[in-house]
Amino acid sequence: MSLQDHYPISCPFCTISTSYPASHSPIPNSPDPERISPQCHLLLSTPHVLAFLDILPIAPGHILLTTRNHYEKLADLHTPSEQSKEGSGEGGKEEGKETARQLGEWLPIVSAALVRATGIEDWNVVQNNGVRAAQVVPHVHFHLIPRYQEGRKEVANKGNVDVGMLKSWRMFGRGAREELDDDEGVDLARVLRESLRTVIGEETREGGKSRL
Amino acid sequence: MSLQDHYPISCPFCTISTSYPASHSPIPNSPDPERISPQCHLLLSTPHVLAFLDILPIAPGHILLTTRNHYEKLADLHTPSEQSKEGSGEGGKEEGKETARQLGEWLPIVSAALVRATGIEDWNVVQNNGVRAAQVVPHVHFHLIPRYQEGRKEVANKGNVDVGMLKSWRMFGRGAREELDDDEGVDLARVLRESLRTVIGEETREGGKSRL
Repeated sequence: MSLQDHYPISCPFCTISTSYPASHSPIPNSPDPERISPQCHLLLSTPHVLAFLDILPIAPGHILLTTRNHYEKLADLHTPSEQSKEGSGEGGKEEGKETARQLGEWLPIVSAALVRATGIEDWNVVQNNGVRAAQVVPHVHFHLIPRYQEGRKEVANKGNVDVGMLKSWRMFGRGAREELDDDEGVDLARVLRESLRTVIGEETREGGKSRL
Repeated sequence: MSLQDHYPISCPFCTISTSYPASHSPIPNSPDPERISPQCHLLLSTPHVLAFLDILPIAPGHILLTTRNHYEKLADLHTPSEQSKEGSGEGGKEEGKETARQLGEWLPIVSAALVRATGIEDWNVVQNNGVRAAQVVPHVHFHLIPRYQEGRKEVANKGNVDVGMLKSWRMFGRGAREELDDDEGVDLARVLRESLRTVIGEETREGGKSRL
């Protein structure tokens, strides 16, 4: 028996899922990023899926969309591995199917919010399965990665986020993955949640009425 | 008015969609690849989504999952652009939502079939939006790209496809994208359709009972 069996390294996305239960609205109102460490900048929280900012963004606005229950690889949502069976609760086949359908449903919505908030026109959606496919966290997740055009300011000004002003932006321009600055994360997540609310037609606004 | 307005280049995935209407079963039985040119090696055909082999595969078993109606980018499934509105028929918002949910639902199923047919453990799912994100065909599609391990034969023998025997395999090993060989496409597609039927629990077999 290995040390890891005695002291399992818990799945970071399961930690996020447990720390941020499904909220009343799919778009949480001013969720506290410090509920866990490293901070989580939550954007979406439903009984089946969650979205939050990647803490090692490839570009500003790099979002992860993941499943609330633990599935290691995408195929596990249909044909669960033993490990996924343990993590995915009692729902079984129907739970996996509905989760898969919600991932599909939210991908275009989160994409539309990202487009609206940042002014980008182009973005990649990437989902990696296994180490040879560059999967790092063994819990199914889709990356949404904005592709900004060369004239950054011009694009940034079309959206609600002044991307050119983000501290980390200059670093991302060189392709490095630097840790997300916490303050920038807070601002970016708030703008993205507002954008999500607009896209799905919700009225709530954060700020004065915020429950922070 | 440009030449293209007079003589629009038709969308290749709309051509596939039109040429292969939804079949009785989601997994078509021995569909004729020569219905269009270049050949289409169809794997899945429902009222909302289709899957077929990429004709410029990055690796053997490179599959595309796409929408039956024309949507340019993923966000268009929720917030349709003018162009997508024209291509997506009368269904509007509900049509886009159900299409998105079916993309989500089929991604794990097609993944599970790919795993089963090829013996791979690792694969990438990639969906590109816009030229800066390397989108080539302006019609929403997800790439499913197997990542084979170094000892090819060993892996190949675990699955139903003898990947090591595929003519094009040696070329893909060097990372080039060569055109899919038509005969290989026919064989690979048949094995993948059988695998899909097994994964979704369908009984039909191609071959003796084939309607070719």
